Amino acid sequence: MTETGYVVEPIGWIESPLVDDATAPLQGDEGAPEAWLVFEPQVSEGIRDLRAGTEILVLTWLDRARRDVLAVHPRGDLNRPRQGVFSTRSPHRPNPIGLHRVEIVSVEGTRMRVRNLEALNGTPVLDVKPVLDPGTER
Amino acid sequence: MTETGYVVEPIGWIESPLVDDATAPLQGDEGAPEAWLVFEPQVSEGIRDLRAGTEILVLTWLDRARRDVLAVHPRGDLNRPRQGVFSTRSPHRPNPIGLHRVEIVSVEGTRMRVRNLEALNGTPVLDVKPVLDPGTER
Repeated sequence: MTETGYVVEPIGWIESPLVDDATAPLQGDEGAPEAWLVFEPQVSEGIRDLRAGTEILVLTWLDRARRDVLAVHPRGDLNRPRQGVFSTRSPHRPNPIGLHRVEIVSVEGTRMRVRNLEALNGTPVLDVKPVLDPGTER
Repeated sequence: MTETGYVVEPIGWIESPLVDDATAPLQGDEGAPEAWLVFEPQVSEGIRDLRAGTEILVLTWLDRARRDVLAVHPRGDLNRPRQGVFSTRSPHRPNPIGLHRVEIVSVEGTRMRVRNLEALNGTPVLDVKPVLDPGTER
């Protein structure tokens, strides 16, 4: 690419019973178990207004993804023609940032239990954003 | 945070008449002009299936944001109480990744004209994802 890179630092991590990419659901509403967002103490002020019952967007760093892949078979189905990765939600892409819409089930200090998160155990969390306008993606 | 950082590399850049943070709209549907996504030639294979008329999610690196801010007045309105940044869409946050839902107006090689993009001219693009399920944010 270019010489211009930027360094992202995890603000937390995912705790999940999902440890194996092969058996994890491909999307959060396809049978993901409840999981935890575990935030670094340093960002406590940033999460102080997040409440149980709220839907949020979680951005992760998909640290087990490949970054040298530009086309994939959608959903890993070899019967489907390869597509450019930017038309897919494949984890394999130049900057493997995951985007997950989850619901906060409970908040315990810097730990939040969430529903519908398909990311693997140990995945770094980069950011959390509110769902601005439910039903229109922002 | 931690010693564990990851390097993101721009896959492209934004060309926009918006050059000034003070006058840019806060959200894409609040009067953003048409803009261009200009992709690096190296990722052409990744964008080959993106078509005019499609809505996509664009992830950017908000390179003019502050990373040391954990609470802000929402929308910069000093009359509103400060909130933790992870409950806001403020650009100022530890990992200033922007998330924009835009519509592709036209495709010309590695350049795409898009509608409803509020990011500033020169903003690096990190990723593009399809809107999986319009109306439910994925």
